Amino acid sequence: MARPVILFSGQWSDLPLEELVPKASEWGYQGLDLACWGDHFEVQRALSEADYCQQKLDLLSRHDLSVPVLSNHKVGQAVCDPIDARHQTILPDYVWGDGNPQGVRQRAVEEMTATVRAAQKLGITVVSGFTGSPLWSYVGGYPAPSASVVAAGFEEFARQWNPILDVCRDCGVKFAFEVHPGQIAFDLHTAEMALEALSGREEFGFTFDPSHLHWQGIDPVEFLRRFPDRIYHVHVKDAVLTLNGRNGILGSYLPYGDPRRGWDFRSPGHGGIDWEAVIRALNEIGYDGPLAVEWKDAGMNREYGAEDACKFVKRLDFDPARPPSGSAFREA
Amino acid sequence: MARPVILFSGQWSDLPLEELVPKASEWGYQGLDLACWGDHFEVQRALSEADYCQQKLDLLSRHDLSVPVLSNHKVGQAVCDPIDARHQTILPDYVWGDGNPQGVRQRAVEEMTATVRAAQKLGITVVSGFTGSPLWSYVGGYPAPSASVVAAGFEEFARQWNPILDVCRDCGVKFAFEVHPGQIAFDLHTAEMALEALSGREEFGFTFDPSHLHWQGIDPVEFLRRFPDRIYHVHVKDAVLTLNGRNGILGSYLPYGDPRRGWDFRSPGHGGIDWEAVIRALNEIGYDGPLAVEWKDAGMNREYGAEDACKFVKRLDFDPARPPSGSAFREA
Amino acid sequence: MARPVILFSGQWSDLPLEELVPKASEWGYQGLDLACWGDHFEVQRALSEADYCQQKLDLLSRHDLSVPVLSNHKVGQAVCDPIDARHQTILPDYVWGDGNPQGVRQRAVEEMTATVRAAQKLGITVVSGFTGSPLWSYVGGYPAPSASVVAAGFEEFARQWNPILDVCRDCGVKFAFEVHPGQIAFDLHTAEMALEALSGREEFGFTFDPSHLHWQGIDPVEFLRRFPDRIYHVHVKDAVLTLNGRNGILGSYLPYGDPRRGWDFRSPGHGGIDWEAVIRALNEIGYDGPLAVEWKDAGMNREYGAEDACKFVKRLDFDPARPPSGSAFREA
Amino acid sequence: MARPVILFSGQWSDLPLEELVPKASEWGYQGLDLACWGDHFEVQRALSEADYCQQKLDLLSRHDLSVPVLSNHKVGQAVCDPIDARHQTILPDYVWGDGNPQGVRQRAVEEMTATVRAAQKLGITVVSGFTGSPLWSYVGGYPAPSASVVAAGFEEFARQWNPILDVCRDCGVKFAFEVHPGQIAFDLHTAEMALEALSGREEFGFTFDPSHLHWQGIDPVEFLRRFPDRIYHVHVKDAVLTLNGRNGILGSYLPYGDPRRGWDFRSPGHGGIDWEAVIRALNEIGYDGPLAVEWKDAGMNREYGAEDACKFVKRLDFDPARPPSGSAFREA
Amino acid sequence: MARPVILFSGQWSDLPLEELVPKASEWGYQGLDLACWGDHFEVQRALSEADYCQQKLDLLSRHDLSVPVLSNHKVGQAVCDPIDARHQTILPDYVWGDGNPQGVRQRAVEEMTATVRAAQKLGITVVSGFTGSPLWSYVGGYPAPSASVVAAGFEEFARQWNPILDVCRDCGVKFAFEVHPGQIAFDLHTAEMALEALSGREEFGFTFDPSHLHWQGIDPVEFLRRFPDRIYHVHVKDAVLTLNGRNGILGSYLPYGDPRRGWDFRSPGHGGIDWEAVIRALNEIGYDGPLAVEWKDAGMNREYGAEDACKFVKRLDFDPARPPSGSAFREA
Amino acid sequence: MARPVILFSGQWSDLPLEELVPKASEWGYQGLDLACWGDHFEVQRALSEADYCQQKLDLLSRHDLSVPVLSNHKVGQAVCDPIDARHQTILPDYVWGDGNPQGVRQRAVEEMTATVRAAQKLGITVVSGFTGSPLWSYVGGYPAPSASVVAAGFEEFARQWNPILDVCRDCGVKFAFEVHPGQIAFDLHTAEMALEALSGREEFGFTFDPSHLHWQGIDPVEFLRRFPDRIYHVHVKDAVLTLNGRNGILGSYLPYGDPRRGWDFRSPGHGGIDWEAVIRALNEIGYDGPLAVEWKDAGMNREYGAEDACKFVKRLDFDPARPPSGSAFREA
Repeated sequence: MARPVILFSGQWSDLPLEELVPKASEWGYQGLDLACWGDHFEVQRALSEADYCQQKLDLLSRHDLSVPVLSNHKVGQAVCDPIDARHQTILPDYVWGDGNPQGVRQRAVEEMTATVRAAQKLGITVVSGFTGSPLWSYVGGYPAPSASVVAAGFEEFARQWNPILDVCRDCGVKFAFEVHPGQIAFDLHTAEMALEALSGREEFGFTFDPSHLHWQGIDPVEFLRRFPDRIYHVHVKDAVLTLNGRNGILGSYLPYGDPRRGWDFRSPGHGGIDWEAVIRALNEIGYDGPLAVEWKDAGMNREYGAEDACKFVKRLDFDPARPPSGSAFREA
Repeated sequence: MARPVILFSGQWSDLPLEELVPKASEWGYQGLDLACWGDHFEVQRALSEADYCQQKLDLLSRHDLSVPVLSNHKVGQAVCDPIDARHQTILPDYVWGDGNPQGVRQRAVEEMTATVRAAQKLGITVVSGFTGSPLWSYVGGYPAPSASVVAAGFEEFARQWNPILDVCRDCGVKFAFEVHPGQIAFDLHTAEMALEALSGREEFGFTFDPSHLHWQGIDPVEFLRRFPDRIYHVHVKDAVLTLNGRNGILGSYLPYGDPRRGWDFRSPGHGGIDWEAVIRALNEIGYDGPLAVEWKDAGMNREYGAEDACKFVKRLDFDPARPPSGSAFREA
Repeated sequence: MARPVILFSGQWSDLPLEELVPKASEWGYQGLDLACWGDHFEVQRALSEADYCQQKLDLLSRHDLSVPVLSNHKVGQAVCDPIDARHQTILPDYVWGDGNPQGVRQRAVEEMTATVRAAQKLGITVVSGFTGSPLWSYVGGYPAPSASVVAAGFEEFARQWNPILDVCRDCGVKFAFEVHPGQIAFDLHTAEMALEALSGREEFGFTFDPSHLHWQGIDPVEFLRRFPDRIYHVHVKDAVLTLNGRNGILGSYLPYGDPRRGWDFRSPGHGGIDWEAVIRALNEIGYDGPLAVEWKDAGMNREYGAEDACKFVKRLDFDPARPPSGSAFREA
Repeated sequence: MARPVILFSGQWSDLPLEELVPKASEWGYQGLDLACWGDHFEVQRALSEADYCQQKLDLLSRHDLSVPVLSNHKVGQAVCDPIDARHQTILPDYVWGDGNPQGVRQRAVEEMTATVRAAQKLGITVVSGFTGSPLWSYVGGYPAPSASVVAAGFEEFARQWNPILDVCRDCGVKFAFEVHPGQIAFDLHTAEMALEALSGREEFGFTFDPSHLHWQGIDPVEFLRRFPDRIYHVHVKDAVLTLNGRNGILGSYLPYGDPRRGWDFRSPGHGGIDWEAVIRALNEIGYDGPLAVEWKDAGMNREYGAEDACKFVKRLDFDPARPPSGSAFREA
Repeated sequence: MARPVILFSGQWSDLPLEELVPKASEWGYQGLDLACWGDHFEVQRALSEADYCQQKLDLLSRHDLSVPVLSNHKVGQAVCDPIDARHQTILPDYVWGDGNPQGVRQRAVEEMTATVRAAQKLGITVVSGFTGSPLWSYVGGYPAPSASVVAAGFEEFARQWNPILDVCRDCGVKFAFEVHPGQIAFDLHTAEMALEALSGREEFGFTFDPSHLHWQGIDPVEFLRRFPDRIYHVHVKDAVLTLNGRNGILGSYLPYGDPRRGWDFRSPGHGGIDWEAVIRALNEIGYDGPLAVEWKDAGMNREYGAEDACKFVKRLDFDPARPPSGSAFREA
Repeated sequence: MARPVILFSGQWSDLPLEELVPKASEWGYQGLDLACWGDHFEVQRALSEADYCQQKLDLLSRHDLSVPVLSNHKVGQAVCDPIDARHQTILPDYVWGDGNPQGVRQRAVEEMTATVRAAQKLGITVVSGFTGSPLWSYVGGYPAPSASVVAAGFEEFARQWNPILDVCRDCGVKFAFEVHPGQIAFDLHTAEMALEALSGREEFGFTFDPSHLHWQGIDPVEFLRRFPDRIYHVHVKDAVLTLNGRNGILGSYLPYGDPRRGWDFRSPGHGGIDWEAVIRALNEIGYDGPLAVEWKDAGMNREYGAEDACKFVKRLDFDPARPPSGSAFREA
């Protein structure tokens, strides 16, 4: 299909964008899903410096790369999370400030708002990212949260995100929330609850990343069929179950790549996801946005893998049927 | 085998012990795993009132019930957890106090110490319970905890629990920690880490409850084979996977019994656990303590279920081989 | 649960009812689902003879059997089927008449109407049966029917059955159509279409027989969850897949019991159906009608099997949870 | 292997043959399995016009395409089917005539005879097609056909087809009947019965299309091993099971491509068939005829798919072992 | 069914028969499959002492036990095996003699002949046992045996066994060879070859023990369907696969009960065999001989297990259908 | 990865090396694992003729092939096997001699010693091969070997092989024993026992060939994780299970390629082995030696297959991760 195959720059922020761009182009990518960290895209400079955005666009266009999506997972995480020391490691200093939770969350809201405005300046209509969650620590633990505790968590989520979504609406930008453990929604039912908490407002949809669903035992295709008009962005990332009787699905706090984990991320096509089924379902729902490779695989050289992934996705992606006008033999 | 089949009283604390005891006896149980909440067993009264313990023992013995284990999961949870509003609902007022986290944790340590002393007074050598966890909220979420964060969490666990275990040592009591999501250990690797954090001290072992392992994709038998000399208590509780492509393993914050959950608890023998394999492995490692039914099943009448479970466990439990002295035909 | 376990008399019509009734009672059944063929129940005599119904009820009650359901599958089959020679073998002579298709269908409508009135006379509120189908011969074959052909078939079904359902409404009787290959509906989607064709009128619901769904690869529980308020009757019949690479799911026109078939019927509990899941789902949707064993198993002595089945169903059926009033320990 | 990879033209009859031929050649095909409908091949013109056949052969040969097989499924369907309105849509007007069933069947016999003669004129030795079936409507339905009904159906099949097969014998042509639901045979047992009804005459063998066997739960390799000397033609078509608990194997009268179906056709290599095993079994039995792609996939652009399929089959097909003359190391 | 449930005495030869008989009777058995070792049955005394046989029969009959089968696996093993030190441990001294292989094999032939005559004296028509094998050591190893080596092995088998089978014929006794690894036949193909080597003589059939087939990945029911008229005896023994990625199917020379083995024997109903399918297939082929429990389970107390097994088999065994004379409703 | 892809010459010994070398080079191989039979490599000539080795090296180097491994499975087999007629077919005449077992074994020891010295002369540091086994004939058979019999077998193995390994030590050569049925070790446990019998001396490690483990039900990755520092050589050979209920895992003495076998060898990538997992595990343990294709597939043309296999392995092999110096986004 004509869906552009792009690379999410987030895992490559150790490289200056100047270095990444020619590589991505050489590997075959047609664009970037640009991360708002490292020097890839700096939100405040984008808003304050007159030619910052144009320079980025020029750099990309010199290598024939488009930039259809801007991503700010790290700041989004702080918008409605219980703030602790971990957040300092992922936030810009000016968002972290003194680290007082209430203030951090407030500044995260403002930074996400700025991200939306910067996207508009870049001519981008989709911002992708995380939301954080007031409820995550209750997943699977003890005591289980009561229904009212859960409801309160979703209300807080809505309270924090509605102002950002208002700016989205004003700027013609959609927020593509990545459904992901640790976030307000991580599966079908919680995604329904998140939409409901926002009264289904159109600015809010999903970044579909099947890897997070696969290890939870969910068929990613069911997600696409449940939310056909809310798929605003797609991450191509694979995952594998490595359950052998001794490994557990919760990962034991072990780093990726450790063989004692119950699941792991994989370069696309090297894991357990039925990509053919995913492509067919994307065709069914008429998704025609980019396919962004988010490359993570603790067991493979990343440059080899990024190129391999680009080829894989191009080989995979095919057009849906356009039925012929005339009638034909339909059954044998 | 001669292992007594007993009932964990924790799920029945809405009934006065006077009411539960004759029922348990009638259902066929040979003893109770007595919970330190409701009126089943009150730790402070046990220590301060001269005949409290004896009255409890008399009540049980009138119905031919033994009490080989005392359980205090609720207070144990607070020992090294990040304290929040949920804990108020599970703690005695005098442990919660003003709710200041540091103080709550300190009082929880003291109450667990008291629990150990009360067990000694009852003539019980095994206390079962939870530990809480400084790390649980990082499971599966974002950003993943670094190795040093994980190490610090296990150190805090050891710091909080070592004083309690010192009292265990002095009182001749073992603490049988229930490996369970939300606790310091919930699978094989984290159980190894917990033992290591305590330098393997003998007072600390496990309450083996296969239901929590089963839904994580772990074979419970592998747990028994990894820790053959640390199985200090056994809960008989079943679980079932209900993955149909739409349900997720993390449960979506849905209550037990909701068909949209990815797993659920079940009355023993009504779930997915291979109990025959569990019994054979218990025989292999020489476990001869009680088998305590922890009855939870949101889809079954609990009195029917408690009786059904007792019969199931008695039917299930068989003696290991005692090889005959003479030689025999060994192969055909 | 208090659901009565009854026997569907249809497979026993070679025995006079006088002979079957004491056997059924001895095997442990609490009632019959009475078939309108053989001498079990003759519709025209029931309407024309003053004491026919009362004599039947007396016979049953002498053996403590109730009769909550009347079944007339054979005549129902002819209501909207393309009539051919096969139908003569299953219809009373006065319904077959000269065998002219249009006339046979018309007389079948009248006989089903009479069946409903006879049920009312017996004090029965559920009539179970087949519908026939104008579309069945197109299943899986060539050429596939167009959407308009399918629509026309469902319209014909509605045209034929609405008059019968009008009488149902007047008599306070529900028609429990058995979803079954060969009938207007045989799976979830066709059941939806049948309800839609009848504008969802309440007189029309389903006899749920999981065996027919199982061999089609359908989870019977999904049927119950899709139509929770349309389950008017339940057949307990099991089925087994016998696919070994050489057998086909369509059965090769081979009789039941032939090992070359791809599936077969089985005595309840001797096949592949997850009965525990079925009972839990019946509890969930609040079904409290009878559980009627429809006994078919080409590999088992039927009298042995009928008794075995009755015991199986009684052992299987359990009450749903009635949550205790007080609060209890809910998580460990 | 040297087996030619060809395209079955039946699904492309909306395109004039002039248009299809250069496309097929460009996609990599080496020949066509030519359909007797659309303008691809007109039987009566072939017999009555002197140069019709040669012109077709010339057109193909200009693009280096051979034509080893002629197919006439649509007329074959009418030879022993119960004729109804559906048949009018697939038959030439002169075969349908007044639509009187007996006459239609008779004219279908004559047209199939003509097809065989036309094949001979083209220099083709294999005609592929359907048979129709007097028995299909009884599959899976109610009441099941008795053994004598089944026997009568196979007799009728033989009565109708023997005259056509006599002409085959005279013309040196084999009829490769496509085993397929809706036809006289659709699985192993019915294929045995069809052969038996014809006393195993050599003119009658099979077009092996594994897709129809796969969704019935049959291993296509077992078919090849059962009828090693009756495989007269091979269709390469894939199929996929899409059973998710709610979909049924009988398809619910839903069109291909609807996600609520229990199975669907797929472009070769995009479904569930183990093609490697099929190729190995074809090698085992020594089949050296063409591999004809019958392209059907409701979820893929057909021109993309036809080319993809041709490459897939060429990549797949490999030579069997030719053991070396000398002895070698055979075991490590 | 009326098939007697008996106990194979071979695994109990450490107990004097006087001790075993009352136990077996108490456990519920109806007879013994009597082993020719220990003091259970001594072949030479049976032939030389006038009342030896009658005394054995009297002992059994005092406890209502029949003896329909005599077993001599240990001596049978030596008939065509390459003799080595292992055989000394299983043979009577007078068969072992000086241990010269040729002489041992010859004396084993004579002892098996004596066994057949002793059976006749006891009134028994089935002798069960092993054959040994000249080929076993080549299974799976290196270098693989050539076709001529295999053929020679089967010829040797026939040469050694034909004289014994001649005596069988004369005495009206059948030899029920237990298909088993280590023997001339251990699966379907080798069983066919063994029959062929003996030209299918009727004195030679099989003791069907599904446990040996199960761990080889063979469906025991397929064995019954392949050799329906050669099932002369049945052993009821279960087996379980314990493959976890680390264990191997060949058993690593580890003793039964070691968790590192890839398979193990189990008490009937405690392993992986589909006993329901076995019983149905035995009904299909009309086997009406005894069902002999051969009790082996390294993880269970053997007296508990022997009783449990007897109850299991009695519960399992049911009569095949006896179709009713009249016609009935056959389809719903 | 930079691991060279080479071809094991053993299966091609019917071709003179002069003929094989250019083919191997053309197919894409980078070297040979050279077999000591046929004319590929003659041990005695290598030691006695001055320029024999150099000529072999020159031949290879003219076609850019290296020779990192020398293989002598056939002679190794005789070192501690019970010698019988089969061995004559695989041994050089001067090793077989008069065929007296003790002498054959002694000469096999000497020939293996010579092989090690010849390897040194070629500049090769790894000799691959078989060991034979005094125990193999006891696998799975009757009676099972006692623990002391097993221990004696491993002692004999050590006694025979230690002198050869002493020469290995002196020559700087490692012996890479191919774990394989028929040898002293064939799975994880027996491999542990073999190492133990040799007190873990470093000259002895393994040729890892996953095909032999796969059909035994063992996950080859578990072998690599158990012996990470003993993988001295790798064979790339695939295998497939063909269990269909009738075939057995022990192979029925049938030749490769017979569809009645329960498993078979396959060209790499055409069987059931998870090669991606194997490569990842080889990366994990840091194996950087050659990947030697041992090509065996009874259903494929061997020249086609050898080329296909070389491409497959090159496509498969990828570098492990080299983590970037800077920090990056690690979780989404």
